[in-house]
Amino acid sequence: MARLVWALALVGALGRAAPFDNSSSSVRVSWVGDAPSQNFGTTFGLPWPQGKYQPEEVDFRISNEEIPLQSWVTGYWRDGSIKWSAHAIPRTDNVADEYTIEVTPVSKHRHQTTRMSVKDRDSEVTVNTGKITVSFPKKGRHIVGSIKTAGGKTVGINGRLVLYSQNSIPDTASSRTSTTIDRHNFESNIEEVTVSKDNSVRTLVTVRGKHTAIEGSDHDDWLPFVLRFYLYTDSDAIRLVHSITFDGENDKDFISGLGIQFQVPLKGEKLYNRHVRLAGTDGGFLNEAVKGITGLRRDPGAEVRTAQFEGKALPDESTWDTRVTTRLQWIPAWNDYSLSQLSPDGFTLKKRTQPGQSWVNIPGGTRSGGLAYLGGATQGGLAVAQRDFWKRYPTGLDIANAGSDEGQITLWLYSPDAAPLDLRPYHDGMGQDTYEKQLDALEITYEDYEAGFDTPYGIARTNEIFLYAFDSTPSSDTLAELNALAQEPPVLVAQPEYIKETKALGSYWALPDDSSPARTKIESNLDFLVRHYQKEVEARRWYGFLDYGDIMHTYDVDRHQWRYDIGGYAWDNSELSPDLFVWQYFLRTGRADVYRFAETLTRHTGEVDSYHIGDWKGLGTRHGVTHWADSAKQARISQPQYRKYFFYLSGGDERTGELLEDTLDADMTYGILDPQRKVRTDGWKPSPGAPVTFGLGTDWAALAAGWLIEWERRGPRWEEARKKLAGTAAGIAKLKNGFVTGSGSYLIENGTLLPPPTDPDNQGVVAISHLNAVFGMPEVISELLEYWGDDGAAPEGFEEAWLDYAYYYGATAEEQQTRYGQSFTGVSLVQAHSRLAAYYAASQKNATVAARAWSDYLGSDGFRDTQEFVAVRVDGSAVIHPVDEAAWLSTNDFAQYGLASIQNLAYISNSLENSV
Amino acid sequence: MARLVWALALVGALGRAAPFDNSSSSVRVSWVGDAPSQNFGTTFGLPWPQGKYQPEEVDFRISNEEIPLQSWVTGYWRDGSIKWSAHAIPRTDNVADEYTIEVTPVSKHRHQTTRMSVKDRDSEVTVNTGKITVSFPKKGRHIVGSIKTAGGKTVGINGRLVLYSQNSIPDTASSRTSTTIDRHNFESNIEEVTVSKDNSVRTLVTVRGKHTAIEGSDHDDWLPFVLRFYLYTDSDAIRLVHSITFDGENDKDFISGLGIQFQVPLKGEKLYNRHVRLAGTDGGFLNEAVKGITGLRRDPGAEVRTAQFEGKALPDESTWDTRVTTRLQWIPAWNDYSLSQLSPDGFTLKKRTQPGQSWVNIPGGTRSGGLAYLGGATQGGLAVAQRDFWKRYPTGLDIANAGSDEGQITLWLYSPDAAPLDLRPYHDGMGQDTYEKQLDALEITYEDYEAGFDTPYGIARTNEIFLYAFDSTPSSDTLAELNALAQEPPVLVAQPEYIKETKALGSYWALPDDSSPARTKIESNLDFLVRHYQKEVEARRWYGFLDYGDIMHTYDVDRHQWRYDIGGYAWDNSELSPDLFVWQYFLRTGRADVYRFAETLTRHTGEVDSYHIGDWKGLGTRHGVTHWADSAKQARISQPQYRKYFFYLSGGDERTGELLEDTLDADMTYGILDPQRKVRTDGWKPSPGAPVTFGLGTDWAALAAGWLIEWERRGPRWEEARKKLAGTAAGIAKLKNGFVTGSGSYLIENGTLLPPPTDPDNQGVVAISHLNAVFGMPEVISELLEYWGDDGAAPEGFEEAWLDYAYYYGATAEEQQTRYGQSFTGVSLVQAHSRLAAYYAASQKNATVAARAWSDYLGSDGFRDTQEFVAVRVDGSAVIHPVDEAAWLSTNDFAQYGLASIQNLAYISNSLENSV
Ligand SMILES: [Ca+2]
Ligand SMILES: [Ca+2]
Repeated sequence: MARLVWALALVGALGRAAPFDNSSSSVRVSWVGDAPSQNFGTTFGLPWPQGKYQPEEVDFRISNEEIPLQSWVTGYWRDGSIKWSAHAIPRTDNVADEYTIEVTPVSKHRHQTTRMSVKDRDSEVTVNTGKITVSFPKKGRHIVGSIKTAGGKTVGINGRLVLYSQNSIPDTASSRTSTTIDRHNFESNIEEVTVSKDNSVRTLVTVRGKHTAIEGSDHDDWLPFVLRFYLYTDSDAIRLVHSITFDGENDKDFISGLGIQFQVPLKGEKLYNRHVRLAGTDGGFLNEAVKGITGLRRDPGAEVRTAQFEGKALPDESTWDTRVTTRLQWIPAWNDYSLSQLSPDGFTLKKRTQPGQSWVNIPGGTRSGGLAYLGGATQGGLAVAQRDFWKRYPTGLDIANAGSDEGQITLWLYSPDAAPLDLRPYHDGMGQDTYEKQLDALEITYEDYEAGFDTPYGIARTNEIFLYAFDSTPSSDTLAELNALAQEPPVLVAQPEYIKETKALGSYWALPDDSSPARTKIESNLDFLVRHYQKEVEARRWYGFLDYGDIMHTYDVDRHQWRYDIGGYAWDNSELSPDLFVWQYFLRTGRADVYRFAETLTRHTGEVDSYHIGDWKGLGTRHGVTHWADSAKQARISQPQYRKYFFYLSGGDERTGELLEDTLDADMTYGILDPQRKVRTDGWKPSPGAPVTFGLGTDWAALAAGWLIEWERRGPRWEEARKKLAGTAAGIAKLKNGFVTGSGSYLIENGTLLPPPTDPDNQGVVAISHLNAVFGMPEVISELLEYWGDDGAAPEGFEEAWLDYAYYYGATAEEQQTRYGQSFTGVSLVQAHSRLAAYYAASQKNATVAARAWSDYLGSDGFRDTQEFVAVRVDGSAVIHPVDEAAWLSTNDFAQYGLASIQNLAYISNSLENSV
Repeated sequence: MARLVWALALVGALGRAAPFDNSSSSVRVSWVGDAPSQNFGTTFGLPWPQGKYQPEEVDFRISNEEIPLQSWVTGYWRDGSIKWSAHAIPRTDNVADEYTIEVTPVSKHRHQTTRMSVKDRDSEVTVNTGKITVSFPKKGRHIVGSIKTAGGKTVGINGRLVLYSQNSIPDTASSRTSTTIDRHNFESNIEEVTVSKDNSVRTLVTVRGKHTAIEGSDHDDWLPFVLRFYLYTDSDAIRLVHSITFDGENDKDFISGLGIQFQVPLKGEKLYNRHVRLAGTDGGFLNEAVKGITGLRRDPGAEVRTAQFEGKALPDESTWDTRVTTRLQWIPAWNDYSLSQLSPDGFTLKKRTQPGQSWVNIPGGTRSGGLAYLGGATQGGLAVAQRDFWKRYPTGLDIANAGSDEGQITLWLYSPDAAPLDLRPYHDGMGQDTYEKQLDALEITYEDYEAGFDTPYGIARTNEIFLYAFDSTPSSDTLAELNALAQEPPVLVAQPEYIKETKALGSYWALPDDSSPARTKIESNLDFLVRHYQKEVEARRWYGFLDYGDIMHTYDVDRHQWRYDIGGYAWDNSELSPDLFVWQYFLRTGRADVYRFAETLTRHTGEVDSYHIGDWKGLGTRHGVTHWADSAKQARISQPQYRKYFFYLSGGDERTGELLEDTLDADMTYGILDPQRKVRTDGWKPSPGAPVTFGLGTDWAALAAGWLIEWERRGPRWEEARKKLAGTAAGIAKLKNGFVTGSGSYLIENGTLLPPPTDPDNQGVVAISHLNAVFGMPEVISELLEYWGDDGAAPEGFEEAWLDYAYYYGATAEEQQTRYGQSFTGVSLVQAHSRLAAYYAASQKNATVAARAWSDYLGSDGFRDTQEFVAVRVDGSAVIHPVDEAAWLSTNDFAQYGLASIQNLAYISNSLENSV
């Protein structure tokens, strides 16, 4: 089967697909990492070669397993053929190691039967997966009305979001006596509920709203949320992707608790048959009953005790030792439990009989798995779990009123026990009240400060939550297994070979290649880099509600510490595209650890490091001590290309799709915010309606990536996007010096690009920057050129302009002088740019340029060929705890060495051995 | 030398000392565990055989090292000869592995010269150790006026205690909006300052007072404290023993922060020469300057960078790269640092530029060493460290205003970032409003509840704090070393052989003996027990501000969990004397791990589990879910014998001495509180002035221990104590059935004991309890009998009464019948009591009884000879994290098997091999 796929894929890769011939063809997908122990339904993406399948002509099915498949198209080639499909499989009793996705003519298998039932009424959406029925009210406070099992047990009702906030934070603990704090409590207030159209295997319910004050509080609705509930046929699990956008005032709206809460009906369940389960470490659990009958002075009987620990209904009381049954009233019922993970290293745990009494400490541990269960042996129960619970500290799990008719589970995405989330600036500007001073400060802290720009207004954060319904208290082994899946939700993906041959994610990467010592050395280096950063996440505790997922920018060799506190050297915010490196490294290796690392990075950088509402919507914010501290708000940082891999591979993750849409308005921001405002010497200023000026590298590449993705997706604005792509590319092509011009004058309304204001007559400007090509431009342009193809769709001269840039960036000063009338200044990141020369060499089959590329790669800047990729143990009093230090490594180099390595190997590996 | 000591010791052990003969004799003391890397002065105790040395005739000196020795007597034999001496050695440049303490005639070495200078003025005490000068004001808020180095640097001023409290706690996070909280801030208010008289090597300054409200708060002064500052000649370290007693209302006075704070003068020190050090994990440190000059965009020069990291003064600015010096104003100064250890597993760390700006997260870790340093490279600085910092969570370290003229260090013994300390009852009584109901509930939860008795009023807690003064910022290696010493302060102790031979801690223990398989097996079992409980402390997280030091009472086999939540099965509160077992195990082994475990246990049980003020002063409180939950407030739990070993070995630890004094009033409580009130059938009720009734086992043994210690110490009430001892012992002896009578009628005023109210004519009562002899009675009586000696000082018939009890407890029903007219009921803990028979057998040289003792030991209750002492791994979802479980082990058995083993081996080991 695999060989057939290969053959077909190769045909596709050449772009000359035969029309569909009614013979089936198929693609294998397998689990990233080990096959999971259970499958409760998942969605995945599959790429296809250009021209191979037209959407209206084909269906998909699984040919090696008897399970239904829901399929839809998430991306198209320019010719309308399928570029990306997405597929959902239901919960299955067994888990196959791999699935074969077969493409069939459309007439076959069109009408699948499904056990999924979806009702979209005026008041609510109801989804019945066959295992659970869940209602989603369209108005009010309850994001989930009820969760009922097929066995008829209602195990969760009145699900709601919970938000606490306060308007101030005491400066110190001692000033708590003198600080007036207005506190507000909020609940979800639903504004819109939508449901997916095709629900044969998967139903997506999207709930949008804001948090609204309760109890007569006078705070406006705020903190908009989007909740995406994914339900699969036959599954009793719900995956919830929970996103919020910060729209408060950072010195008045401090989040002091953010969570999701469910009521659990328990009426009629004996207290000793009610069970609490809270996840400990490594699959461990606290296993308790609301009223314990173990460990007592009198023994009710071994059967009774064992049943309670196992979460089973106890034998009838008449069978117990009466010395226990006559005294049940003296055994405390534990109504409330609370688990707090206030650091990534330790959680505490406590319970109490009721409010007004003291909590009793329960021995805690290091890292909680983040799952809470409350339920009964006969009436069933609900489990709520958060992915990456301890990594996203401060988090918490609360059980309340477990002894009453209605218990409650709260998952705290931000624990109310922690200090409030403080999004204020970390310094007061230190007197940097002019651009001159700001630029001077930039020279020392590398922070590009500007008053008012250090705002989190518009950043977002997404969490993943899992809900599990049970007809009766499950075994804790079951909960442990489910929670393991919640922590690393199983992912299906095609083989690297196949993805590569489709060219759906470009032609700039190839499979690992150990066929020569020189190649093996590069492979080994790449492996070191990706592993080292994963270890650094742990060693440097890059965890936290907002922080988790990001990495740091530069190391402070003297302090054996990343420069977490030094201006522009702290949080990386995708600087120089580590996202691209990690994703491309995953594409070529298929490694599970790399996928998880890349996914986490994407979830952070796409949400926290970009603005999703407000004037700067669509822009990212530059690396800094806080993710939004820097005044450089730029498109290069929210570069949609960083999100593209995850988006398509995940089968079109809807939250990521929304983030991509957010960036479509990035070009509007140039009308009010000039990214070059502090360094511009041409006097240009943005004014609404007038042409705007932006860079042809960092700016245009980011916009182009967004336009291309929108075009691929055939999103609602795809024609506008296509037009802007063509218009700006044509404009660049028409510039006398093409990309070397550095910037252009862009007309937002019609999406065209003219020479920059300094050169209205297109006499030719030479203004290159080392940054132009290190924020995704090579990836975007090569994908774009392949998208346009070679049949004349690409604007005339555009490819040549890019080839010129690729050739001349690293060319000799003489060559530059000859071509442009002057040599380039400001050339650096030579190793990084070697992949541009490699692209040129491969494209033009030019061995000389290939040799130059390898020479630049091996012996310029970045990592020389002599660099040893090793980490050294540092311990003792020099560090807060022992670390393995790679003091020679910065994240810029991590990212760009990685990308240069991958792309040079893809383009010109044949000439490597001649160059070392 | 060792042999000589042995010989002398043996002479002493026989109680027939020759008068002092002018020839020197000596005793070796060595470090518990490895010799420390540094010695900054320490105090230790030494036992002496009865009759050997008269205090007025001898001096002590160190014969193998040229260092001064301060010596004083902490305990006397009955004849006035020295039983315990205490000795202090100063800080020394080198640390010897052992010291030889030589006893010399009094004429020699009487007037040691000292560099210690102590001035006791009206306004303050000033102590100059030769390295630091410390002033202790006698009034006001500042417990330390100033700390100056010999180099003239004032590195700490205005030391004060800090307390925050609040009058309520919101029931839930959501009710924070609707809960009114009155908060109060307090500082130390000094009431009394005293200073030791002999200060040649060690000076002890004792500061007493209460916490007083500041800023016009209307709260009374409360939470009395005693601070004991220990200063040694030549030392720049101060050891501070910090004790508080809770005298608040447990539903109105919630401690929300408790700490000690010092101001650190920094005026004139450049910001880049100011250093912050905060202890991380395993000797690790955060090493930062207030204004960092490493990791910047421009390099000031390698020398500059290295100097800053190492805490040295930077080279003159003129030598730096001017690209840095011209921009120093743009580098943030970090004024405030905060480390929070809110769980025993993880600490977080943050800093900020100033109040009003957000904190910046610093990568934290697992367990902080608990030391904070603030100071300057030229002006010196101060380090504050807490012993057992993370084990006593929630704790914290704050640095504030480090960029101002006066920085501040706060050590939080109770972190203000944590939920307030909640000392309320954990349940509402569940309707137990009669003794009948309470006794019924006792049958199921084993909790002896009574409304109003679940109060923490009068409990105490002691912490150890270390202060270190520096002329300049020290290396972090130095800080790590000092902090290691703060965590396990070096302890000097004599050899087990020597201690045993002096009999100063009884004759009921012997050295480990591996001379036969049967002995080796017992030794191995004991080793298992002591190691297992140490591991359980970690596995079960028996940590916390109040909890640390205690162990749990009984295991819940079904839940794989100690019964932390089940009435009388939770915190152990010395039930059945684990304190005695662990201390005796230390005496025989000299093992460092055992010493630390025993010390920690003593520090907890002596403070938290007893009342130190109020009506119940001197009583302990029975095992329970909270340390004070149980209504059984009894002398057996505050048994002074539990504190005796540590008191004397430590050279008379003054805090422990105070706790011992607290128990001297325990007999007064019987006039108002009848320990047997719920089960008494004789109708007796306490009334002030009238005779009181109490048990001859648990009650009398505890009182007797306190009286004996007071007599030994020749404390202020020693004659009263001696009288009460003799009076009650004589009373017991006169009872027809002696100890078997069970209880007696005690006249508090004159300290005599009469037959119980039920038998005023002394006809003979038989009322034994399995508990009588398992709370220290065997240890107390055997020490007391040795103290009285065999020259007629002991009340007539007293020894016989005890021998009768020892013999008949485990005798046959027939023998009991013959002797007492009836056989005993209620006999259990047979294995535990085998040591009474062993005592009898050794005393009476009775091989038959010895065999009976071994038989009871090996094959009755407790652990049978067939018991395998092993732990089994339990992991997976059954437990919150993996544990090594010894489900067969309860703490009662731990303690009493341990004591029976030790004492049987001491008394009748020769007959063991015949009995197995
Ligand atoms: Ca970031
Ligand atoms: Ca206790």
